[in-house]
Amino acid sequence: IRLIRGLQICRLHNILDIAAEHGLRLFVPSTIGAFGPTSPRNPTPDLCVQRPRTIYGVSKVHAELMGEYYHHRYGLDFRCLRYPGIISADSQPGGGTTDYAVQIFHDAVKTSKFECNLKPDTRLPMMYIDDCLRATLEVMEAPAESLSMRTYNINAMSFTPEELANEVQKQLPDLQVTYEIDSVRQAIADSWPMNFDDSNARNDWGWKHDYDLPELVQTMLNFIGSDSRIAQAN
Amino acid sequence: IRLIRGLQICRLHNILDIAAEHGLRLFVPSTIGAFGPTSPRNPTPDLCVQRPRTIYGVSKVHAELMGEYYHHRYGLDFRCLRYPGIISADSQPGGGTTDYAVQIFHDAVKTSKFECNLKPDTRLPMMYIDDCLRATLEVMEAPAESLSMRTYNINAMSFTPEELANEVQKQLPDLQVTYEIDSVRQAIADSWPMNFDDSNARNDWGWKHDYDLPELVQTMLNFIGSDSRIAQAN
Repeated sequence: IRLIRGLQICRLHNILDIAAEHGLRLFVPSTIGAFGPTSPRNPTPDLCVQRPRTIYGVSKVHAELMGEYYHHRYGLDFRCLRYPGIISADSQPGGGTTDYAVQIFHDAVKTSKFECNLKPDTRLPMMYIDDCLRATLEVMEAPAESLSMRTYNINAMSFTPEELANEVQKQLPDLQVTYEIDSVRQAIADSWPMNFDDSNARNDWGWKHDYDLPELVQTMLNFIGSDSRIAQAN
Repeated sequence: IRLIRGLQICRLHNILDIAAEHGLRLFVPSTIGAFGPTSPRNPTPDLCVQRPRTIYGVSKVHAELMGEYYHHRYGLDFRCLRYPGIISADSQPGGGTTDYAVQIFHDAVKTSKFECNLKPDTRLPMMYIDDCLRATLEVMEAPAESLSMRTYNINAMSFTPEELANEVQKQLPDLQVTYEIDSVRQAIADSWPMNFDDSNARNDWGWKHDYDLPELVQTMLNFIGSDSRIAQAN
């Protein structure tokens, strides 16, 4: 882990140097994990205390600050979005803190049972992958003069495991959800934003999400349900 | 500069690892430079926005966050103070943003003329070296249970070049001060705290400064005046 962390920071610095030397526009993704327990959580504005307690978050804060330093010092066209939890059907959940919101769809379709490792009332900001990709393209295409800052929160919706489960059960009423709390992951989630204030992104470059909770659930079940049927047919 | 910066970060990570492995108590100095133009400046609390625009400040924020990460994750007894501008008689000013407040004493004694590179009303937090050293020892000796945080602002006084010059002129009325603004340094100073809120240090582990502005000036002139006379005698 130490080696990877060191390499990641060196790689970031190398990329910043190369982008500055060649006048490239550079995008670096950040995350709700760049905030921590001393940040305001409901809602979390763009500019506030950032003392994350994960190495993931500490690295992301460093990337944000280095990018903005290169912007102010060398004129680098650095742009950065803080993503909420990203939900998509075409990749398997990787075990991250927000990945329960992907796993639930796979388990709902396959077994009608889902064991959630976060408490039912753990509210986190979330976004469907199509909105995430579009936001990234849009911030990169925005005229520089529209950007009043270089690191923006973006958001679409905010829900709890219980609210997501209720919405899935509207489509799949047989789904049974149980809760087996992972204390490490719960502590991380409890230190992250509950609602993400992305009003600067909406005002500066017109960010607008397409998918809210009902559309997200319908879309995910369409994809995963059909994948599942194909898998069974094979 | 790039190489040094990369090496400094690697060195910090190595020191954190060694300290954690051997159960050492680790002190890392931070600075008013860990804040930036989007931080509240008058006063600047311990917990607020930290988006510094100097590489010095960005590195210090990384050190603070890495140290606190090691504290929470591995139990490292990490302690960190954010120093204001430090004023001492026994080392030459190194060209930093707050170093005008050292240079003025040398020039006042030697030539009775001082050219200040900051505007006369640029207010910055400052401290005499003896207070700085004592604060460092005291935070390292404080019982762990008295520390509600791991990175503390410390302060003694806050003054402008004009206020400092007025105080020096009470002792050396011939001193003439002119202003030739260094725009880079002025921009840095204008992004730093004007007053530093160190109430947590005072409440948690009893921080109390000894030297205020009149005592600082008297002490500096005693040291530098006698050095100067010795130099002339030689």
